[in-house]
Amino acid sequence: MTILIENALIIPMTGKGREKKGSILIEDGKIKEIGKIGCVKCDRRIDAERMIALPGLVNAHTHLSMGLMRNYKDSSPNLQEWLSEIFPIEDKLNGNDIYQASRLGIVELIKSGCTCFEDMYFQSENTARAVKEAGIRGVLGLTLFGDGKETERRFSELLPKVLEEAGSCGKIRVDIAPHAIYTCTADTYRLAREKADQMHTLLNTHISETKKEVEDSLKEFGKTPLSYLDSLGVLSGPTLLAHGVHLTDEELEVAREKKASVVHNPSSNAKLASGTLDVPRLIEKGVNVSLGTDGASSNNNLDMMEEMHVTALIQTSHNLTPMKLTPYEILEMATAKGAKALMLDEKIGTLEEGKDADLILIRTDRANMTPLNDPYSALVYSASSEDVDTVISGGQVLMENRELTTLDEEEITRKVNEAWSDILKR
Amino acid sequence: MTILIENALIIPMTGKGREKKGSILIEDGKIKEIGKIGCVKCDRRIDAERMIALPGLVNAHTHLSMGLMRNYKDSSPNLQEWLSEIFPIEDKLNGNDIYQASRLGIVELIKSGCTCFEDMYFQSENTARAVKEAGIRGVLGLTLFGDGKETERRFSELLPKVLEEAGSCGKIRVDIAPHAIYTCTADTYRLAREKADQMHTLLNTHISETKKEVEDSLKEFGKTPLSYLDSLGVLSGPTLLAHGVHLTDEELEVAREKKASVVHNPSSNAKLASGTLDVPRLIEKGVNVSLGTDGASSNNNLDMMEEMHVTALIQTSHNLTPMKLTPYEILEMATAKGAKALMLDEKIGTLEEGKDADLILIRTDRANMTPLNDPYSALVYSASSEDVDTVISGGQVLMENRELTTLDEEEITRKVNEAWSDILKR
Repeated sequence: MTILIENALIIPMTGKGREKKGSILIEDGKIKEIGKIGCVKCDRRIDAERMIALPGLVNAHTHLSMGLMRNYKDSSPNLQEWLSEIFPIEDKLNGNDIYQASRLGIVELIKSGCTCFEDMYFQSENTARAVKEAGIRGVLGLTLFGDGKETERRFSELLPKVLEEAGSCGKIRVDIAPHAIYTCTADTYRLAREKADQMHTLLNTHISETKKEVEDSLKEFGKTPLSYLDSLGVLSGPTLLAHGVHLTDEELEVAREKKASVVHNPSSNAKLASGTLDVPRLIEKGVNVSLGTDGASSNNNLDMMEEMHVTALIQTSHNLTPMKLTPYEILEMATAKGAKALMLDEKIGTLEEGKDADLILIRTDRANMTPLNDPYSALVYSASSEDVDTVISGGQVLMENRELTTLDEEEITRKVNEAWSDILKR
Repeated sequence: MTILIENALIIPMTGKGREKKGSILIEDGKIKEIGKIGCVKCDRRIDAERMIALPGLVNAHTHLSMGLMRNYKDSSPNLQEWLSEIFPIEDKLNGNDIYQASRLGIVELIKSGCTCFEDMYFQSENTARAVKEAGIRGVLGLTLFGDGKETERRFSELLPKVLEEAGSCGKIRVDIAPHAIYTCTADTYRLAREKADQMHTLLNTHISETKKEVEDSLKEFGKTPLSYLDSLGVLSGPTLLAHGVHLTDEELEVAREKKASVVHNPSSNAKLASGTLDVPRLIEKGVNVSLGTDGASSNNNLDMMEEMHVTALIQTSHNLTPMKLTPYEILEMATAKGAKALMLDEKIGTLEEGKDADLILIRTDRANMTPLNDPYSALVYSASSEDVDTVISGGQVLMENRELTTLDEEEITRKVNEAWSDILKR
């Protein structure tokens, strides 16, 4: 299958100012050629006149199935109290709930231009099934809670299920996701690191999301959260740190040295009043910062276009310096740096010949994008997910003219509503 | 013309918890009946099953024509330097530019669920023409800059033009809009108050947008900005105060006493790093707070659905207390309190029998709105403008199934691009 995308304004995200008008030839799921492409044989042509071609967005931290608890218990006063409302619901979820909610989340991801995501949740074999059916790319965390014994059980009983469902699907990788230092023991973190290294995958964890977490960590371990994990040897391999709102300068130095990435989740941090991550500070320190929506129950959607916009506004509001974090840098967080955070930067995250064809087309002919002027500003400040016209993952068209090709939104929302009303009765 | 909207979840915005499933009968542009409506004769039926019926949103502060400068000079370090880039462009604008840009802005307004707006700009007769053609409701400011002599000239030369174009259109009112204390003299403000009173309309002005404005005011007038205006007698009649980010407690007391409303513009204040208005503080003080997008060059769109979302996140981020400003209160700012701010609360802003039929229908059957759970949270946190399906102003359908009925977006964006490239050559 070859697809030729013609006349696009191509923003490859390989460096600012490299945007150019041109075509993209996709062959066997990969980007074969970018630039002025003459007469070629192809199975499909897409006219992208007045569209921007951008790498597919990478949502580096989410919990798809928490879409079930969307707009539920929203007025909890803080993260800990909110979690105490949510955890009992989560205990009731069955495989079908996870499958339906995963499909729901993937609809939102695709409609907001996402071609790849990292998910941390339970019974992930059901999410793997949804990912395969949808054709999106996913890194699925085997989530850990509790002590070493429980972790060994999860490795022997649960991990094989996810790996089996993922099978040889080239678009799924499984990583190891100890939930947080306040829900997992030191043993669990040590075992997680070991397992992640064996599997050549990421260790993915929540860290320093709230001040309370930091204070409790100081009391219990005599160290701030990331210093504590570092002292356990957890950062010796590739690590993804979700939130990191309250990381100290010393911890950022450790993150840089050990090449751990941070995922910024601005909507969730704002909504739960967890605080504001000072992104420019992390970039200055040389830490790789990516972007995520967190789960839909703390956001309350999975709209990555909106997440870029919110990042821009909250950072400026916080720093009181316009454009200290530039639109280009925000786009980088949502593309190239997201791919790097997920150890997928050799495959995706930029538009380059030889990479997998994960890309999106964004309309610029709408009122809210007129005049276009600076396309980077336009994408971050003016655009919304409605402007995402076409989504392609590994050469497969997942959405075109805003019509989903692999998923039926009407059927999925009906099934999720059925599942949710059933859960409330359990 | 009678329209029957059936099976909607009606959120009348007359008080929290008054939402109910039912129908709305529109006759001669007014809401005739709300509730369980049996068999009636009507010209049109709209099935609003799985939709929310909400009062049309009110954008209480914008500058439609600044859409021309969208994504232009975005990296200016502060409001003053940005204005110094923008003012020379504004001097070049002709009537056609204003007309085209007004139409562009109105497309954005309608598509994001707005049925009414307040505009502060120049050559407003061209905006009036666009408003009439679009069928939206507008309060158009006669904008004042400079001294009393210039103001007299504007009253005698420019005001008649706008009033003539507005004619007997029941959807347009003209108000008097001295720009700001750093661009208008005391004489101009005194004359503005006099003229607004004569016309039984609002005086609308920018106030306390930045710290610099406050510091300069203290230096020049020995008073903070609103205290200064109060000392001139400016607040003796209905007044609309845009921004108000740095209003002091004493000034808020004056605003409450004199019944002046404030318009919060969160995206603009964040983007230009002007600071964050502490909205709950104003509500506690008894000040009427409405919501606006400001112009598209400092936002960079006119999306009121997004503005509600941004309000929620920035307020929590700022106050570090979740839901201190509730979703219901934010919806109120964008509807009932906006109508009140524009002196239109007897006509619009809530869904009540006898009021003008300004209302919108929002889809709840999309993935991002599933499960719905709390509809107030859903509207503020989960929804986007793409979920706005139908927009009705004074009984006239301006959009249905996201298709505009009175405006041609493709033609308008083309004309605006032509105008903008012409302006850059002047």
